[in-house]
Parts: sequence; C-alpha cells; structure tokens
Amino acid sequence: MTPLSTPDLHALVEGVYADLAPFRGEGAVADYIPQLARVDPQSFGLAVATTGGDVITAGDALAPFSIQSVSKVFTLALALGKWGDGLWKRVGREPSGTAFNSIVQLEQEKGIPRNPFINAGAIVVTDSLLAGHQPREALGEILRFLHFLADDESIVVDQAVARSEQATGFRNQALANYMRAFGNLHHPVDLTLGVYFHQCAIAMSCAQLAKAGLFLANAGRLITGGSVVSRERARRINALMLTCGHYDASGDFAYRVGLPGKSGVGGGILAIVPGQAAIAVWSPGLNANGNSALGTRALELLAQRTGWSVFGG
Amino acid sequence: MTPLSTPDLHALVEGVYADLAPFRGEGAVADYIPQLARVDPQSFGLAVATTGGDVITAGDALAPFSIQSVSKVFTLALALGKWGDGLWKRVGREPSGTAFNSIVQLEQEKGIPRNPFINAGAIVVTDSLLAGHQPREALGEILRFLHFLADDESIVVDQAVARSEQATGFRNQALANYMRAFGNLHHPVDLTLGVYFHQCAIAMSCAQLAKAGLFLANAGRLITGGSVVSRERARRINALMLTCGHYDASGDFAYRVGLPGKSGVGGGILAIVPGQAAIAVWSPGLNANGNSALGTRALELLAQRTGWSVFGG
Amino acid sequence: MTPLSTPDLHALVEGVYADLAPFRGEGAVADYIPQLARVDPQSFGLAVATTGGDVITAGDALAPFSIQSVSKVFTLALALGKWGDGLWKRVGREPSGTAFNSIVQLEQEKGIPRNPFINAGAIVVTDSLLAGHQPREALGEILRFLHFLADDESIVVDQAVARSEQATGFRNQALANYMRAFGNLHHPVDLTLGVYFHQCAIAMSCAQLAKAGLFLANAGRLITGGSVVSRERARRINALMLTCGHYDASGDFAYRVGLPGKSGVGGGILAIVPGQAAIAVWSPGLNANGNSALGTRALELLAQRTGWSVFGG
Amino acid sequence: MTPLSTPDLHALVEGVYADLAPFRGEGAVADYIPQLARVDPQSFGLAVATTGGDVITAGDALAPFSIQSVSKVFTLALALGKWGDGLWKRVGREPSGTAFNSIVQLEQEKGIPRNPFINAGAIVVTDSLLAGHQPREALGEILRFLHFLADDESIVVDQAVARSEQATGFRNQALANYMRAFGNLHHPVDLTLGVYFHQCAIAMSCAQLAKAGLFLANAGRLITGGSVVSRERARRINALMLTCGHYDASGDFAYRVGLPGKSGVGGGILAIVPGQAAIAVWSPGLNANGNSALGTRALELLAQRTGWSVFGG
Repeated sequence: MTPLSTPDLHALVEGVYADLAPFRGEGAVADYIPQLARVDPQSFGLAVATTGGDVITAGDALAPFSIQSVSKVFTLALALGKWGDGLWKRVGREPSGTAFNSIVQLEQEKGIPRNPFINAGAIVVTDSLLAGHQPREALGEILRFLHFLADDESIVVDQAVARSEQATGFRNQALANYMRAFGNLHHPVDLTLGVYFHQCAIAMSCAQLAKAGLFLANAGRLITGGSVVSRERARRINALMLTCGHYDASGDFAYRVGLPGKSGVGGGILAIVPGQAAIAVWSPGLNANGNSALGTRALELLAQRTGWSVFGG
Repeated sequence: MTPLSTPDLHALVEGVYADLAPFRGEGAVADYIPQLARVDPQSFGLAVATTGGDVITAGDALAPFSIQSVSKVFTLALALGKWGDGLWKRVGREPSGTAFNSIVQLEQEKGIPRNPFINAGAIVVTDSLLAGHQPREALGEILRFLHFLADDESIVVDQAVARSEQATGFRNQALANYMRAFGNLHHPVDLTLGVYFHQCAIAMSCAQLAKAGLFLANAGRLITGGSVVSRERARRINALMLTCGHYDASGDFAYRVGLPGKSGVGGGILAIVPGQAAIAVWSPGLNANGNSALGTRALELLAQRTGWSVFGG
Repeated sequence: MTPLSTPDLHALVEGVYADLAPFRGEGAVADYIPQLARVDPQSFGLAVATTGGDVITAGDALAPFSIQSVSKVFTLALALGKWGDGLWKRVGREPSGTAFNSIVQLEQEKGIPRNPFINAGAIVVTDSLLAGHQPREALGEILRFLHFLADDESIVVDQAVARSEQATGFRNQALANYMRAFGNLHHPVDLTLGVYFHQCAIAMSCAQLAKAGLFLANAGRLITGGSVVSRERARRINALMLTCGHYDASGDFAYRVGLPGKSGVGGGILAIVPGQAAIAVWSPGLNANGNSALGTRALELLAQRTGWSVFGG
Repeated sequence: MTPLSTPDLHALVEGVYADLAPFRGEGAVADYIPQLARVDPQSFGLAVATTGGDVITAGDALAPFSIQSVSKVFTLALALGKWGDGLWKRVGREPSGTAFNSIVQLEQEKGIPRNPFINAGAIVVTDSLLAGHQPREALGEILRFLHFLADDESIVVDQAVARSEQATGFRNQALANYMRAFGNLHHPVDLTLGVYFHQCAIAMSCAQLAKAGLFLANAGRLITGGSVVSRERARRINALMLTCGHYDASGDFAYRVGLPGKSGVGGGILAIVPGQAAIAVWSPGLNANGNSALGTRALELLAQRTGWSVFGG
C-alpha cells in the first residue's frame, strides 16, 4: 500500500464524512445499558492518525464517547505483557461463530472463552490483570496505559455509565459466574466485573482512540519512538482483531473493509492499517450484528477510496 | 513488506525445508478416504511462486498430491465470476466455529452454510457451477481454469481417489441431502456430489498449486498480464481465506502465520502474500484440527523469516 | 382405574366425537410429503379397543390413513424381539429435547439417536430388522406382524405414499447417511430407507390400529390369549411412548393426556391405557409440534371423561 | 395394580434392603458442595408410606439427609397453588435433553427453562413464591408446607449445607443472572437464590419424605382427609416427575423403574405409586447421571418385586 499524502488523505476523510453525514441516525442506539441510550443518535465522527504523525478529523471527532468493547484491545495488550503466551491457557484465539454474549460456547468448551474479544474472553483478560492488585489499581493501570498511548491524561471513566452497566449487566454476571464454576475466574466475580464495567465505561474521542491505537499500525512502537509491544505481538493483536473483532460479523467486516478492527456497542470502531494509520469512527446507531452501522460504512468507503486493505493493493 | 531478492528467497525456502525435514512423518495421514491413506507420510514439499515470475521449490515440490479442499478456492473464484454477489444468498461469509464437516450449524441456519470453505458451503458453490451444465462439463470447466492459471494442461483428476471418496463420503451425502431438504441444492445430490468428489480428487504439485494461486497475490491478474478476477474480488477471496480457510483453526493460523491460506486433508496448504507471492506446501500428516502439521509449521517459519504478514511489517 | 361398562364407554366416545366434530379441519395437513397433502382435512375418526374385547368407533374410524411414525411402535417391538437389550447399544432411551428430525443431537452423540421414536432412531431400528434379510422380506415381516396383531390381512402399504416419501425424503437421507458415517447403519442407505419409507406408508384405520396396539394394554398378550411380548417389555414400550412418543411435545402430552402415546404426521395417534384399552385417533391437521391437533384434543377430552391416566385415579 | 398386604410389603422392603446392602458405598458422593461431601457414603435407607396408612422402613430410614432437588416437587406444588397455569408462562413442561445445570437450553429458548425440575426451572418456581414476601417468609412457607404434609414439625434447614451452597453455587448464580437478563427472574438474584439454596438444604429422613409425598399417590389428598391439590394437579405433577424428574436420565428411569420419581444430589429419590404408596430411598453415592446409584437400583428392584408400575400390571 502506497502512503497517501497528507492533503490527499485530508480530502478523502472529509469526502467520506460529507457523503455519509446525510445518513446520520441510521441503526439503533444500544439501549440495554440505560445510560448509553442517552447519547445523541446523530453523532458521527472520524479520525485518522498516521504513522507520519498527522491526525486528520471530521465531524464529532473530538467528542468523547463510551469505548465499551474497544477497550478489550488495550487490556489484551496489557495482559499479554503480563502473562505472555500463558494467557492462552485461559482463553482461545478462534472466531466464536455465535452472538457476542453467548454462553453456549462456554458450556461446550468447559469455561474457556473462544477469544479475548467476546465478553467472556475479555472478562478473563481483565481477571488476569487483577492478579496481585486491588480493583482500583488494575483500573488505574488500564487508564495510565491509555494516557501513555494517546499522550493525553484527560481520558477518564464515565462513572454514570459504569454504574449503569453494573446495575444491569446480568449477562456478564452470568458469564463470570459460569467461568468461576469452571475455575477460570481467579478473583471474586464482583471484583473482576467491577474493573470490567469501568474499563468499558472509559470515554474517549475518535482522535484519542486513533492515537491510542496507532502503535498497532507502527510495528508495536509509538511514533515518538518508545516500544509498546514487540513487532510480532502487534501483528498478532491485529490478526485477532481481524478474525474476532466484530463478533459474529467478523468475516463480513474482513470481506467488506479488509482491515483489522474492533467495535464497541457505544458505536465506536478502531481499525488498523498496518504501516500507515489507525482509524477511529463513531456513530451510535448499531446494525443487526451490534456494530456501528454508519461507522462500518465509513470504514468501507474510506478503505475503498484510499485503497487500504491488508489483502492486496 | 519489502520484496526479497530471488537468491535471498531461495536460501530462505531451502533453509525452512532443511530445518523441518527431520520432522517428516509428523501428524496423522487422513484415513477416512482409503485411497488418501496410501500416500507416503514422509512426503514434504514447498514451492513459492513470486509476482516477479520466480518459482522456488524444495523437497517433493513436483510430486502431485490430492488437493482436496484447496480446490474450494478455485471453485469459489469461478462461482463468483458466474453469479457475482448473488452467490451470497446461498452461502455466508462468517467463520464457522465448529468442525469442518459439522451439520449442526446447517440446522440452526436453515440450510445456509456459514462460508464457502466448509464442506457444506463448497458443495453449494459446486452446485452453483452446475447450472445449465452436465456434471462432466462443470468438472471440465474447473480443470480448464486450473490449466489456465497454472499454465499447465497436465493437471488431472486422480480417478482412484474420486472413486474412494464417492464410496465413503457419507457425511457429504448427509450434508448435501440436508441442504436439498432446505432447497439450497438445485441439482440432484448425486450429480452435485459427483462433481464435488472429482474436484477434491484433482492432483497437483506444490509448484502447480503456487502458480495457480498467484493471481490472488497479484491483484487478480496473471503475471503474464491477463485478468482473472477484479482487484477487489481478489482481496475478498483473500479475506475469506484468512477468516475461514482453516476450519476451526482459522484464528490460530491467522495468529501464527498471518497470511490468507486454505488447507486440504491431502496435506496441502495454499497461502497468499499479497503483492509478493503464492506459497504451496505439502506434507500429508495432519494435526488435531485436520490441517497439515508440518505444512503449517513450514508456513509459520517461512513467514517469520521472510517477514511476510498481512498484519504489519 | 375402574373399568367402564361398554355402554358407558360407547356414550363417552360418541360424546367426544360430537363435541369436537365442529372443529374438524383444525391444524395444518403435512405437506412435506406431497401425497400426504392430498388427504381430506375434514377427516376425523376415533376407535377404542378394550381388553374386554369391545371395539368402539366414531367418525371416520374405518377409513385407512397413513400411519407414518406410529409404525415405529411396532418395529420397535419386533426389533426388541430380535435383538433384546442389545438394541440399546445402537439407540438411546431419552427424550430428545429437539425437533423430531433434528440432526444436531446425532452429531453431539456420535451417531447414536436419542430414542427409537425420533426419525433417526426409527431408521436404526428398521436397519436392525434388515439383518439377514432382503428389504422385501423385512417389510413382509412388519406387515405380517400387523396382520397378526390386528387379525386383519387387508393391511397394506400405500405405494403412492411410499414413492412420494422416497422422492422427497432428503432429511431422512441426510440422517441415514450421517449415521452410516458413524458406523451406526449396517446396510446400504438405500435399502434401509427403502424399508423405512414403506413402513411409514402402511395404511390402517383407527379400528385396525387400536386393535393392533391392544397387546400393550394387555400385559404383552393378545386378548385371544397368545403372547406377543413379555409383560415387562410391554411396560417398557409404554414407558418409551410416554417419555418420547410425541417428539418435543412428549412432556406436554404426558401432562395433558397422561397416557403413553405415539403420533404420526399422517394425523394418527395411538394411546395405551394399561389394563384397559388401546385408543386410536385420526385427524390430519397438525399442531405446531407436528402432532394431530384435533387428535390430541380428543385424547385429552376422552382421558378426562373416562378418568383414564397412568398418573393416578 | 393390586394392593399388597402390609406384611407382604414389609417383607419385600426388607428383602430389597438386604439384597442391596452389600453394595453400599457404590457411586460417587457429590462433592461440588463441600458440606455434602461429608456424609457417610455407606448410608442407605428406604421408606414406603402407603395410602393405607402404613410406613415401612429399612436401614437408615430415620436419618435426615439433604433433600436437595427433591424439594422442587414441593415448591412446584406450592407455586401451582399460587399461580395456577400462569406459572407455565415462565417455565416449560418438556424434558430437557441436556445436563441438569445446562445453560445452553436457556439461551436457545430465551430464558424460559424447559421444566420446573432442572435447576433453572426450579429457581424460577422459587422466584414465583417470593412475590409479595420477604425471603424469610417464603422459606417459612415451604417449611410449613413440609411440616403439614409429613405431619412433623421437626423438619429444618441444615444451615451448614445452605452456607456451603451459597459460597460455591456459581452455576446457579450464572443461571439466575442469565434469566434475569431475559426478564424471567422478578426479584434480585441474591434474594431468590437465598431462598433456593435454603430450600435445597432442608434435611429430611426417608420416612418423612415418603409421608410428605404421599398426597401425590392419593389423588392430591392427605390420607387423613385434607385436600392438598386437586386430583388433576396431582396427576400432572406425577407426569412431570416421570418425564423430567431425573434430568437427562428420565427416560432411563421410566424404562427401568416405571414410576414418577424425583432425585436429588444428596442421594435421595422420591417415587410415587399412584393409588398405592410413596417411596423414599437414600444412598449418597451418585451414578454418572447424578442420581443415587443404589437408590435407583433399590427402586428398580422394589418395583419389580411388587409389580408396581404405571405402565401396566
């Protein structure tokens, strides 16, 4: 993939925004967490952070939103740093083939979630970060990691969302208790879920998210030079995002967009263009698979127009 | 990914072969088709066909073997040429999350296979090639396509394998009848399976297979210039290979190898390096997931040493 | 349960018929076998054969209909006579918990059907009757058994229905091939299914069916004195009818009717009142679970009014 | 079924006990609740309470044990009294076809448990008893019902077992939270499970249990004359016990024993002989299906020797 010039990329991002803005409001805002349902359904933002150091934005790219499951990319990077390949004893690496909060698979596979991006898997990852820590410390570690990656200390947890998740997260309670029954949760359910609900309630803007994800496009390094993860680990996290990042629509996302990506029910998606850029989009309306409807279309259009794809130039 | 010089690549391929040759015989040769069980378990071949026009080989790279499910890549390309996106009404694009010949998913999803690379999906793809044709003609079309791609008219069906499959393929009979019950098979089961069993019994060498797959690394074009599929379609076939090409070990293959690939129970694997090369490996011993054990390791090692990965340089 | 006098029972049967006749036509006639769809949806018959030797009828009780899955009771009795408890190595005795033609369970349980009354189980039972026989002989044995039980040599196969089943029975083809893949079918699929389709196509009237089933209410003996099966085996067949005789509505039938019963998609149901009577009802319209809608209601009403129930007087 | 004389029955019960006592210790004591694992594995008791007013005992028939899931019969009777057929909107009546604590079925059927005797269904039943009550009151109602039925106010909850269940019941926590996510639990999970764990921890002897269950053999009435449930409801509870009372071995129990029964992981089983008697057996070692191994054999032998069976004399 040939790098695009900054002005060209600027024009393309603006063009995608302009072409899709008329469709704002598409899809259904997640309402299973009451606090999430309050967001303005017309919101729509895009940000592209390039390995060259540019951050190009359009629309509501500076407005913070609830990153929800996009947080799973960052906790996975932390947990791999802490446990290395040992983490894979507790969680698999295969696409799930069922809905994102499915408990069926857990029963068939004896409490080992299929991958770190379905809820059960992400709860195990968070549980692994609790080892030797109080919940407050584990959450602090996650926030500090995001501050470091995005070079922005203003990123915080939206406490109203966190409380809302805690009050209504019965499925996650079920998943966590179920894995505890199989011995695959090492801390009391309430502590692990406490951290998990707060991590999902972290609020970030598209611009912050794109900057935070850029190390995955940059061989595991900050563009300012520091190493975050090894080159090989960055690749592997990208591989997991591609095969498992969109629940049971991962195959479709790979087919249509052709880039590693991770979506959240808050309407955000982070996508990685290896060697080139990290892209964050946000639009709260979700499609039938629980991924941002307009966000997916924006990524598809942008990939088409830029020629960005991991599957061939 | 920076292209490697021909001598460098030569040395790398030979090195991988030399380092793994001591492990020949690893894994278990497929025995559910009696004729397949007769192959020499010590066989081990590699071939890399580059977009620059080189074909580098090592070991048993010129010996023909039964390509089995690798054939599904080529029938998919043909069927997309015939039906375009209309094909997706009859088959999905999502990883399956269950074993390669699973019938459970078919029941849950009313006869629509999850993707074109599991057996049920590939049978539908073959059925779609039968429209307006006699079985002999449909099979002829598949063979001619391979002759054209590999520039080699010596590729033929191994009739002994074809007969062996026909006599023992009860699961495929079950799958086909099941889809027929849902109306998703348009021809008599025996005709469709007749073509399918013959297509799986096509014999090719690693060198032929790498050359035949090269268009997927070359934006859909032959390196001699002719167009096979559009650039976009080539990408999309690569995306499907990456998310679904290794049955329920697709996630692991993406994680470890980082390239689109399609395996067959004959022990062959075709992998694509977009912009650079097509790789074919062959070793009949299979791992627990039904993919070539040594072949997978060879691809992992070669990807590591060449730096080839779709997920970042 | 106190026996009812013949005149009382006569009045009760007539009463049930009269009360429900206005609802004839209820439910949907099975149409997956074209020949079955031709039956008059207004048909409605009842017959009660008592251990005292009476046969009380109402409505279309003398009209022959396709007994379909009710035949499974009789082939089970034959197969237990031939194989004894050895039969249970090939088929289970548990309710299935899924739809009557489900293939999911077969995959999870490695080709062993859950019970002899779901299609897969009945196909195995029929396969066991083929041992040492030609299909024609096996079918002859089944017909002779029915002639003997009903004391009526006029019972025959409806050849048009048999042909219709053979031409459209893709799911049964799938089930049979699937079990063959697991080694749980011992004869070629076509032979076993040939007998199975013909056994399902046997035509009997309510009166014939009630008489044929009477040995199950009479401790395994004909009321004229001959032994058919042991007392213990009669009990056990009744137990299987109660727990498994109505596919995934067996629990509901036990709850509402309280008698062992076996239904067929032709709209017939055979129910057993231990010590007292065998009841046959027929009405072709099926409810959502694939059991005769009016037939189930008729049995419920008759059980209520007679006080017949195995669960307490 | 002809009633047996008291001396005959006495001799039969003693005979069964004597013949099986050498096998005491068979099976594996449940250890998933630590407190249950402390029971003496050699324990073995039988009690038969007849509708004629006799209570015949053998072995450890007066020693209290943890009734566990046998309690579900009594809470079901209470809940049907409170809600009538309205209860069936929240729980089904079909055999489950999967293990007793399976969560898979709940997902497929949107939070509606298959029947009131699997854990999920029994939790819903208990939840329904909480309506308008504090947990302490609901538990009190259950205990008073047992005191009334067994005419014995000494029946109490084993608090050590209750605490043990509460500390380790992760699967039940998962089930309850899961149903809450579907809106099929109307009270906070902790309250409902609090009552449920205490109800399972009720300790009763075989003699108490047989007396408490006798109304189900007596057309819903106490033998001293009071009505507990209607005749029809008693039948229907018996029907549910027969089709669903032994988890995924209900079919086998019906086949071998031929009586409605409900087992618990404490090793107790309550069986009903309509019109004649209620039987309670206790032996803590469980078979592979989680039902008392020796208890099941004792019931099978007793049924054989008495001729008791609902499926024919």
